[in-house]
Amino acid sequence: MLKIDIKQGSLTEEQIKWFEKAFRRCARRIILSTTLAGCGHPGGSLSSLSLLLVVYSLAKVNPQNPRALERDRILISHGHISPGVYSVLCEYGFFPEEPFLMEFRRAGSAFAGHVEQSVPGVEWNTGNLGQGLSAACGMAQALKLKNLSNLVFCFMGDGEQQKGQVIEARRWAVKFKLDNLITLIDYNQLQIGGKISEVMPQDLKAEIEATKWNVLEIDGHDFQQIFQALKVAIEKKVSNPEHPTAIIAHTVMGKGISFMENDPKWHGMALPEDLAKKALEELGFDPGELDVLKEKRKTWNVSFPHQNYDPLPIELKIPAPTIYPPEVNTDCRSAYGKTLLNLAKENNPPTGTPKILGLTCDLEGSVKMTDFKKWSPQAFFESGIQEHHTASVAGALSKEGFSVFFSTFGVFAIDEVYNQLRINSINRTALKVVATHLGADVGEDGPTHQCIDYIGLLLNLYDFEIYITADPNQTDHIIRYIADKPRNIFVGMGRSKLPVVTKEDGSPYFDENYTFIPGKADWIRQGDKGVIITYGTMIPYALKAWEILNSEGIKVSLLNVASIRPFPEKDLLKASELKNLIIVEDHLVETGLGTRIASFFGLKQIKVNLKLLGHKTICSSGKPSELFKQAGLDPESIAHTMKQMLK
Amino acid sequence: MLKIDIKQGSLTEEQIKWFEKAFRRCARRIILSTTLAGCGHPGGSLSSLSLLLVVYSLAKVNPQNPRALERDRILISHGHISPGVYSVLCEYGFFPEEPFLMEFRRAGSAFAGHVEQSVPGVEWNTGNLGQGLSAACGMAQALKLKNLSNLVFCFMGDGEQQKGQVIEARRWAVKFKLDNLITLIDYNQLQIGGKISEVMPQDLKAEIEATKWNVLEIDGHDFQQIFQALKVAIEKKVSNPEHPTAIIAHTVMGKGISFMENDPKWHGMALPEDLAKKALEELGFDPGELDVLKEKRKTWNVSFPHQNYDPLPIELKIPAPTIYPPEVNTDCRSAYGKTLLNLAKENNPPTGTPKILGLTCDLEGSVKMTDFKKWSPQAFFESGIQEHHTASVAGALSKEGFSVFFSTFGVFAIDEVYNQLRINSINRTALKVVATHLGADVGEDGPTHQCIDYIGLLLNLYDFEIYITADPNQTDHIIRYIADKPRNIFVGMGRSKLPVVTKEDGSPYFDENYTFIPGKADWIRQGDKGVIITYGTMIPYALKAWEILNSEGIKVSLLNVASIRPFPEKDLLKASELKNLIIVEDHLVETGLGTRIASFFGLKQIKVNLKLLGHKTICSSGKPSELFKQAGLDPESIAHTMKQMLK
Repeated sequence: MLKIDIKQGSLTEEQIKWFEKAFRRCARRIILSTTLAGCGHPGGSLSSLSLLLVVYSLAKVNPQNPRALERDRILISHGHISPGVYSVLCEYGFFPEEPFLMEFRRAGSAFAGHVEQSVPGVEWNTGNLGQGLSAACGMAQALKLKNLSNLVFCFMGDGEQQKGQVIEARRWAVKFKLDNLITLIDYNQLQIGGKISEVMPQDLKAEIEATKWNVLEIDGHDFQQIFQALKVAIEKKVSNPEHPTAIIAHTVMGKGISFMENDPKWHGMALPEDLAKKALEELGFDPGELDVLKEKRKTWNVSFPHQNYDPLPIELKIPAPTIYPPEVNTDCRSAYGKTLLNLAKENNPPTGTPKILGLTCDLEGSVKMTDFKKWSPQAFFESGIQEHHTASVAGALSKEGFSVFFSTFGVFAIDEVYNQLRINSINRTALKVVATHLGADVGEDGPTHQCIDYIGLLLNLYDFEIYITADPNQTDHIIRYIADKPRNIFVGMGRSKLPVVTKEDGSPYFDENYTFIPGKADWIRQGDKGVIITYGTMIPYALKAWEILNSEGIKVSLLNVASIRPFPEKDLLKASELKNLIIVEDHLVETGLGTRIASFFGLKQIKVNLKLLGHKTICSSGKPSELFKQAGLDPESIAHTMKQMLK
Repeated sequence: MLKIDIKQGSLTEEQIKWFEKAFRRCARRIILSTTLAGCGHPGGSLSSLSLLLVVYSLAKVNPQNPRALERDRILISHGHISPGVYSVLCEYGFFPEEPFLMEFRRAGSAFAGHVEQSVPGVEWNTGNLGQGLSAACGMAQALKLKNLSNLVFCFMGDGEQQKGQVIEARRWAVKFKLDNLITLIDYNQLQIGGKISEVMPQDLKAEIEATKWNVLEIDGHDFQQIFQALKVAIEKKVSNPEHPTAIIAHTVMGKGISFMENDPKWHGMALPEDLAKKALEELGFDPGELDVLKEKRKTWNVSFPHQNYDPLPIELKIPAPTIYPPEVNTDCRSAYGKTLLNLAKENNPPTGTPKILGLTCDLEGSVKMTDFKKWSPQAFFESGIQEHHTASVAGALSKEGFSVFFSTFGVFAIDEVYNQLRINSINRTALKVVATHLGADVGEDGPTHQCIDYIGLLLNLYDFEIYITADPNQTDHIIRYIADKPRNIFVGMGRSKLPVVTKEDGSPYFDENYTFIPGKADWIRQGDKGVIITYGTMIPYALKAWEILNSEGIKVSLLNVASIRPFPEKDLLKASELKNLIIVEDHLVETGLGTRIASFFGLKQIKVNLKLLGHKTICSSGKPSELFKQAGLDPESIAHTMKQMLK
């Protein structure tokens, strides 16, 4: 195992020889692991190999303590080169070789087809290309916030340079002066479909330089050149020392195995056994080893322990809630902004490391983050109209012990970045997505801006808790509740002002005695003829419907479901006893809470009269109250539906 | 109304004077429409106004026939400048002024807050920024395919230049030599959050030049300069005549109204009435008009007819299906590729305009489009690892009378581009999204590549039909069925080889007598004790479970649900009569078909024993059969579950 000091002037002959030998040892592992698994990506693993070897030799990482707080981060954005990464991690002592060779790509093993954090030394699960640099930005920013001088090395493929999210990340890294970030691009000029110049022509250097990064270009198999480029980047002998540096490393796919070189076939295909043996011979190893290991693998049980990489704990002071009296007329997003400011005042010192971070995409005013920004500008990240990058960078930041709030409109916070949130989930992040402007409640901005599928989408993110707030008071309670939870949580709200929900005596329902409990619904009104189940923006409409019914002597209950997940089973069982249930929501009927409740009763074989009110299709551009009326969500229609049901 | 000939050397004094007056007339409409609505985006409308006026004066568009096939296309990517666009369309006679002023941003009116196709002259609904250029690429490509010499003018904001999808579109436009595409960027240097240089610094010119577009820079309020730049672009007097041209137009937000200029506040806020009157005065109009119109609006009923812009019809020859005999061992995606080739041979001539188009993102081989590409290279679009752009460009192409197939893995075709598909839906496209590699069936590539939420996501796209194929034969039938339907349709399949589904007599179930009917399920096996409901990859596992049960004398039915939407109500009602139902799927349980069926029964108050088998969380990287076993989806577990239920 070789550790190199970046301060030395150049690599010694001896060091270069060690790298050359290590290259062959790792190439052997790449060939063995993929051929034994019968699949995998040997081509890119070999083209990135020289780069990986040099970076691990000089990075501040410790195989005995791979999650040490003061470590450099090495992130692999082109996660398919897992055979190369695992081979190098073996070489540097992160784990023994045998379990890797025996378990690569086997169900239940840590050694997955795309790199996963379950393997010590791996910082981020990747596989969907183009998201890794954003996560690297999050790590680099976290180090800066903690005043740590560590570096982030981000390995990237050349094919993934085509993803638009990459240029978003580059701009963000320059805006926030991430001089601790270095990317190494494996420029072998081949992707699955063939030559990158034919699949999608791109002047990579010009594009990167246009974003004001420092760009170095090297032979990616010349160890001396790799070292020198890293030295220039780390010692900031670049034209823009405040900006990050990209190293474009010219490489050869399949490097080191004569018949694999420059053949895109080996991007995503393992060598058949005969060719694998030929490759092992070329590398100077006994080809017979393949048969031995193959036999051994047949009876080998998956055993390598997963190293879960949980988010760092979040420690916050949570002050007592603000209670808005009934005469207040405000929107939930303003309440959110006030709570966030209140939390920041307690937890973000005027200078130094903040504990609560806020990110938005050109909508600071609309999502009410302005006061938060003014209080702790160092904790606020205006990320531009770059939602894909922002969702990813926020996810990475959220693993670092910060309470991270990502806020924008529903269509941008969910619909546009669904897959970025999905990859966050896979990475066990602890992100707080707080979306304002849910539903047709967005109004005049029209269907492109009306998020009427938030529940339908979020239920697919299996680990996200989902909360929708009923009024400013519940918003305040829920935001305080989520702030220090090291999990992924979504909180949603509409755009409009909402009256304070009151008890029948006129006092606030969500008062100082209220405690938000996930999986518990709120019985706003009690009656025995039936129940109107609703949430969020629809609360005042449902309350008016309740009043209409009440004035006609029809006593029904009103149930607010703020906690969509966890699902309030107990309260819904109780609701089912009332037999007549109407679910009212500013959401597509087919995928909303009503359908979720119907399936719950269907599975439980509970017979109740159920009527789902919501959107059957997209709405138009107009005042929310008019759009709701068109969708049959106005108080009169709700009351009418209940009366029909009771007939 | 002024029509200008691009051949003239320069604008005449008279023409310039007309533009100056037209500017004021349109500015008046912008102020009136937004202030009357109480909301909207006057700032950018005014900064884009001079550009809009000149483009409409020389574009080949006819207000009497706004959807003429041989028209130039004018697409507004920054859809929030609708007041500006509608004002100019009024000026050029597309519709009278009154309904626009009376109905702007009112529920049910065509004059929505972001531009919509329901207004004559509008080509594409936008609002979510960064997608418009992709749609413009689709239109420009469609014109090329049809050998029409018309042009596409794409207006863009400067804030949206931050979206990654924009650079994807730029590269695509260069790869496919869209010399008929001109973008005009309203470079007022302000976005909602303030100065673009502060929100997200970007060297716009350098970035565009890096993608090899021609770039012209002008004063965007100097009519002569605008005309000259358009002349240069249209007459291809540029350095790269084969490439598209971008015109960076330096403009002033709020142009023409002294107190609005360069104030980002007016990006998304209407002038209050007093300021609106002041503005009208500055423009030389009677401020009292505002009060008159305000009164009139109070009693005005929304009346302006929506002009639906449906996809052009698709006319294809559909040859008879290929029937795969039981001994064939292939995957559904190979069958898809063969059907596509077969359709192409009938409909895509060797030269000239093809009728069927195929797009993929660096996965041509995996999605089996290679033979299609070889047959009609002019109809195949390798779009690189740029899924966001590709989903949008494919959507735009699908409105033009082509049968457009967009194919990639499930996670890229759905999860990554959900919001692009949503905007396609809003644009009433007729796209065929055919996703291969659904489910944990992807296997060793691991959770980032395993799409186990396809139904959960797609159900939110209210207009998409959703079909999952059971074997190569059903794949062939379904692909032929969808090819000429002018609607959005999704077809999904797994990665693995699937045996041909047979009748009990051993002959193919989906044979030449089979007709695919949306909303109809397939009774593969009949029995009276219960029913196993499944689809796609799970069919052979369920069939084996059926055999286990059958061998033990337990006769159950086996129902294949290929048509997820339309939902097969009749067959499920029939299934409910068997009382014991197991739903087996390679999908998250919480959002899959099982939950959909449970909600159907819940709403119908039908009591049946229901057991849902599927994934409760993400899977690992391994052989599909092992992953299925871990999830309880192996034949033994399915059979066991049924036996438990029957106890």
